Amino acid sequence: MILRFAHGTPECEVQALRSLLEERGLACVRSPEERRPILAVIGQLDARTRGELERHARIEERLEPRLGLDLVERAFRERPSVVAVGGGRSATVRVGGDEVVVIAGPCSVESRAQVRETAAAVAQAGAHILRGGAFKPRTSPHAFQGLGVEGLRQLKQAGEAHGLPVVSEIMDAADVPAFVAAGIDCLQVGARNMQNFTLLKAVARTGLPVVLKRGLAATVDEWLSAAEYLAGSCPVILCERGIRTFERATRNTLDLTVLPLLREWTHLPILVDPAHASGIARIIPPLSRAAIAAGADGVAVEVHPRPAEALSDGPQALLPAELTRLVADARVMAAVTGRGLHESPSAVRAPA
Amino acid sequence: MILRFAHGTPECEVQALRSLLEERGLACVRSPEERRPILAVIGQLDARTRGELERHARIEERLEPRLGLDLVERAFRERPSVVAVGGGRSATVRVGGDEVVVIAGPCSVESRAQVRETAAAVAQAGAHILRGGAFKPRTSPHAFQGLGVEGLRQLKQAGEAHGLPVVSEIMDAADVPAFVAAGIDCLQVGARNMQNFTLLKAVARTGLPVVLKRGLAATVDEWLSAAEYLAGSCPVILCERGIRTFERATRNTLDLTVLPLLREWTHLPILVDPAHASGIARIIPPLSRAAIAAGADGVAVEVHPRPAEALSDGPQALLPAELTRLVADARVMAAVTGRGLHESPSAVRAPA
Amino acid sequence: MILRFAHGTPECEVQALRSLLEERGLACVRSPEERRPILAVIGQLDARTRGELERHARIEERLEPRLGLDLVERAFRERPSVVAVGGGRSATVRVGGDEVVVIAGPCSVESRAQVRETAAAVAQAGAHILRGGAFKPRTSPHAFQGLGVEGLRQLKQAGEAHGLPVVSEIMDAADVPAFVAAGIDCLQVGARNMQNFTLLKAVARTGLPVVLKRGLAATVDEWLSAAEYLAGSCPVILCERGIRTFERATRNTLDLTVLPLLREWTHLPILVDPAHASGIARIIPPLSRAAIAAGADGVAVEVHPRPAEALSDGPQALLPAELTRLVADARVMAAVTGRGLHESPSAVRAPA
Amino acid sequence: MILRFAHGTPECEVQALRSLLEERGLACVRSPEERRPILAVIGQLDARTRGELERHARIEERLEPRLGLDLVERAFRERPSVVAVGGGRSATVRVGGDEVVVIAGPCSVESRAQVRETAAAVAQAGAHILRGGAFKPRTSPHAFQGLGVEGLRQLKQAGEAHGLPVVSEIMDAADVPAFVAAGIDCLQVGARNMQNFTLLKAVARTGLPVVLKRGLAATVDEWLSAAEYLAGSCPVILCERGIRTFERATRNTLDLTVLPLLREWTHLPILVDPAHASGIARIIPPLSRAAIAAGADGVAVEVHPRPAEALSDGPQALLPAELTRLVADARVMAAVTGRGLHESPSAVRAPA
Repeated sequence: MILRFAHGTPECEVQALRSLLEERGLACVRSPEERRPILAVIGQLDARTRGELERHARIEERLEPRLGLDLVERAFRERPSVVAVGGGRSATVRVGGDEVVVIAGPCSVESRAQVRETAAAVAQAGAHILRGGAFKPRTSPHAFQGLGVEGLRQLKQAGEAHGLPVVSEIMDAADVPAFVAAGIDCLQVGARNMQNFTLLKAVARTGLPVVLKRGLAATVDEWLSAAEYLAGSCPVILCERGIRTFERATRNTLDLTVLPLLREWTHLPILVDPAHASGIARIIPPLSRAAIAAGADGVAVEVHPRPAEALSDGPQALLPAELTRLVADARVMAAVTGRGLHESPSAVRAPA
Repeated sequence: MILRFAHGTPECEVQALRSLLEERGLACVRSPEERRPILAVIGQLDARTRGELERHARIEERLEPRLGLDLVERAFRERPSVVAVGGGRSATVRVGGDEVVVIAGPCSVESRAQVRETAAAVAQAGAHILRGGAFKPRTSPHAFQGLGVEGLRQLKQAGEAHGLPVVSEIMDAADVPAFVAAGIDCLQVGARNMQNFTLLKAVARTGLPVVLKRGLAATVDEWLSAAEYLAGSCPVILCERGIRTFERATRNTLDLTVLPLLREWTHLPILVDPAHASGIARIIPPLSRAAIAAGADGVAVEVHPRPAEALSDGPQALLPAELTRLVADARVMAAVTGRGLHESPSAVRAPA
Repeated sequence: MILRFAHGTPECEVQALRSLLEERGLACVRSPEERRPILAVIGQLDARTRGELERHARIEERLEPRLGLDLVERAFRERPSVVAVGGGRSATVRVGGDEVVVIAGPCSVESRAQVRETAAAVAQAGAHILRGGAFKPRTSPHAFQGLGVEGLRQLKQAGEAHGLPVVSEIMDAADVPAFVAAGIDCLQVGARNMQNFTLLKAVARTGLPVVLKRGLAATVDEWLSAAEYLAGSCPVILCERGIRTFERATRNTLDLTVLPLLREWTHLPILVDPAHASGIARIIPPLSRAAIAAGADGVAVEVHPRPAEALSDGPQALLPAELTRLVADARVMAAVTGRGLHESPSAVRAPA
Repeated sequence: MILRFAHGTPECEVQALRSLLEERGLACVRSPEERRPILAVIGQLDARTRGELERHARIEERLEPRLGLDLVERAFRERPSVVAVGGGRSATVRVGGDEVVVIAGPCSVESRAQVRETAAAVAQAGAHILRGGAFKPRTSPHAFQGLGVEGLRQLKQAGEAHGLPVVSEIMDAADVPAFVAAGIDCLQVGARNMQNFTLLKAVARTGLPVVLKRGLAATVDEWLSAAEYLAGSCPVILCERGIRTFERATRNTLDLTVLPLLREWTHLPILVDPAHASGIARIIPPLSRAAIAAGADGVAVEVHPRPAEALSDGPQALLPAELTRLVADARVMAAVTGRGLHESPSAVRAPA
């Protein structure tokens, strides 16, 4: 249950109620950055407690979320939540809210030179966050599995060289310390692991922002439930990446139809990854435009200086020049849908 | 096989070859509106004919379409085809090419007053073609089945009153004469009938433009094959309307992912119907924007002056004011994707 | 609403109520072959009528079917319905009830010799109904479309020569007279036409038994709704033939999971066509066994004396010897699920 | 590449070749229990090695598996593989081969009393392996998550009391030691974790038999690829449990269509779980019959003494009496498909 207090409720009264509820075995989570106090009370309320909450003078609204997911559903926040990614020697990029972001980078970190060259292209194109895989989930055990910890380090260095925060996929709870040690700014949980609850719990404990991709056959309700595993402990960004359908012309079918509904149901930012949905580089630009037109907070794409040489997913990688045009497109689409494009970290650093 | 002749090939040489091929039992279809002659030769070519075509001095290119669909695949045309809808006492609206169109109207024609009021709203909003169902495909035999021929007449009158050409769904080959007699400008073949080959053949014989909706579980290849049934005899407009997937939050999932591929594979214009895909009126505007951003030639939506009173599909009908905003949005999206919005028929008539 | 009268209710009282209801504009359909009178009342009942029915002394039960489909849902019948196919110079085969049937024949009737040879093999194998396509629904307009009326005649003659009733797919309402004239015993409506409501209505008027295949993406509820279009006028047999899923190893996925639920929801007989689901002849025998084990009333398969020469669907055609084994398997599976195999028409005729 | 040596090839020659290949960086896995030596060589072979293998006098066949999965595809074995589960104080149950098995138990271990009572029912019904969840994958973080390690202990004790080996789902690589310490006989990897490659690798290292469930949207090829992650280190049993489709009448659609193909493509045993596919207890018996008729090596079902009180998945749990009938059905279906039912462990122990 979500409790929305009256504006101006003294903090001590909120804390008093919270203590009372926690003594009764109910977990409480405070909604951040809200002007008036909002509290999620998780667990089964007995009749006495329910009655007390109904009579509480300072509580204006008591909301039961549609799916019972107190932390990710809209009731918990009055405005969409904004997730800050980065900081330190890299820019801080705000995902969600009024601005649109572009995440770009290689599918896999393949070598120091490759990720450096790609990071430079990402920065120059005006994109905002550098992505790159160091641990790769591969369908076959005999395929290239990524550079591991060394890949994380190379990614972070390449990001810092251009002021770009970095995001990378984590597949194993045991790797959490390595991601933290390497200074990865944002952890990605991939589609295959969306319901790997062990991983979700481990990732949440870092407190780092997490990009949660939608599973290939996950309903929106299951996706939001998975996000609820994270949302009490870390900021969450959703990422639609295509669902599995009967159509064989494209690898997957990008589900933009649910985007406007997700906006109503959750306060979390929503990205779209058109590359994994389609698997075909040349259709990524129109799909990116469509995603932002449908209301996405940004897009995540793959870029490679020489796609034909990529060790994984080359056919869906953009060339640097294509990325530059895609960022320009995103700026236009953001503008005509009443938003702006996030200021590029490299632009921020330009005077330095 | 598609034969592309050299620019400036004398017409008599094209005709001579055509006669020769037809004598040998091969059907030939001439690509319309092309600067140089292009001929589709349908049927199995024997070795002698194949050799003669390869040696023919005037033929520059011999193309085998990917799916063997000579008339709808890209090889048959050098530029996207443009389909003219309307004329006579209504405007002529060109679908495909550089301009984007909006088709709007009630799900069902319910009464003379309702369709008149709706047509006025459609014209005022700046939309281009009036749609309305007179014969309704209903899952249950006990549901409202439409006004039939009387509905066609009311639709046409309402369209003419505002200079709007009209489109209506035909479900039965036996109804073709009624549609023609009523002056319906464009016939729609619905998703359930996409592979009703009897209907396709009957509709094609009218020569009228046809909107061919994609079947709920039709692959792109099957959809184009169904279009090939029509394409030799009448102009065809494709319409994506959502495919059936596991996701239950929306009625169907709009497949915008295939849109850019369709552009490469076929010269036919492509509309998107976001209303039937989603089933929810309030998410139609962002989906319409996304469709045009992905490259659609237009959108088809439902509008009703009082959706709550609609006899069918009320929950997905826009209000007139919402349609006006949707047309404005379409203008912006067309502009930023390098196209324009078709001039509104009512604007054309305004001075009169 | 379904009205179940007390056993022994005098017929005049049933007729009196029926007349009353029909005067009020409600359609009434009498459930056939039931020991006590059962009446479906179709349409919206007003409060007065509803009250009268509730107080009626002879009515024991008033049932509202789950989907509002009065004629096909279980409430309309106390026992599963049995559909008689054939008669005249061919055997009468009862589909549904305690016995399992096997329908077999070529995908397409290709020539008099081919269908004769196949019919002989079908009879010898102990199968019960001869199938064969004369009008073929083909995805591409350039593919073999069937022999038409001549194919119907050849099919019927081949069936009569072996005492086998025949079933053939009809695609066009305009062909109904030809099917009737040719003496086709049972009409099949294919998956693509499951919601071709025009065709359903025309087929129903013949009064002949109809096999209604499930659409490729039709839910069970839609399938039953389509059956309701037929059920007032003709006997209906359902046929599951695979649904479209993401799995690409097989052409479609046979949905046996719904079979036991269908048994609860409808009284109609249910066949399974494992050939179109899989598209691969060698997996048809185990799928046929599974279908009967799951409760199917029979299976429909394709057989061809020389599959490699078949003009359509050769890869899914069984050899005559394989059909013989399949019928033997069906006998065993029927026995262990508490049923029998229908006596073969050719066995019936053997002494003659 | 799979190398099949001539019968009677001296072991020293096999080992000599193996050493040579391993020196060149290629992994080799020996096919167990085969009469003639069979060796899988994993990795990219250079031209010289390839040439040497082609000229090797003792190698009769060199096979390239369809998917490049050397260990799970049929080429690696001449007969289907049989996986032994259990031993010690419990019976050893052989899965695969000529006999059919039934796995049964509660969805969740809820208490010592509940699992004991259920184990007694499982044994009495003649089923072979006891299943029970101690760590539960729950869509929502607020749902019952299982008893954890204590649940494993209770499961094992209940199994031993009746001579039943036990299987339980593992969700976290970190829990491997706890499963081993508790003496769990067979580890289950659930549908959500089918591509949790970290978990697969950790589980494989135990050498214990593993039941690998198919992911909700996993193709057969992806499923076999996941099995390849395990197959070098531990015995693997596949388990089909329903795929996600558009049909909403059942929770999932059991994919029995691929079963006969899987038989051709892999030597691994294949179970079917009809409970999770359907979610409805009363349709589990016919689906179990269908699964065995289609060729499954056994079925896995849920049983609970009082389903209405179950903490999870009560609606799909069988009553003990229903399980008894299901085992009897399985015996009949096994017999008519040319197999037997595995001898029940409790029968084995009966004299003791």
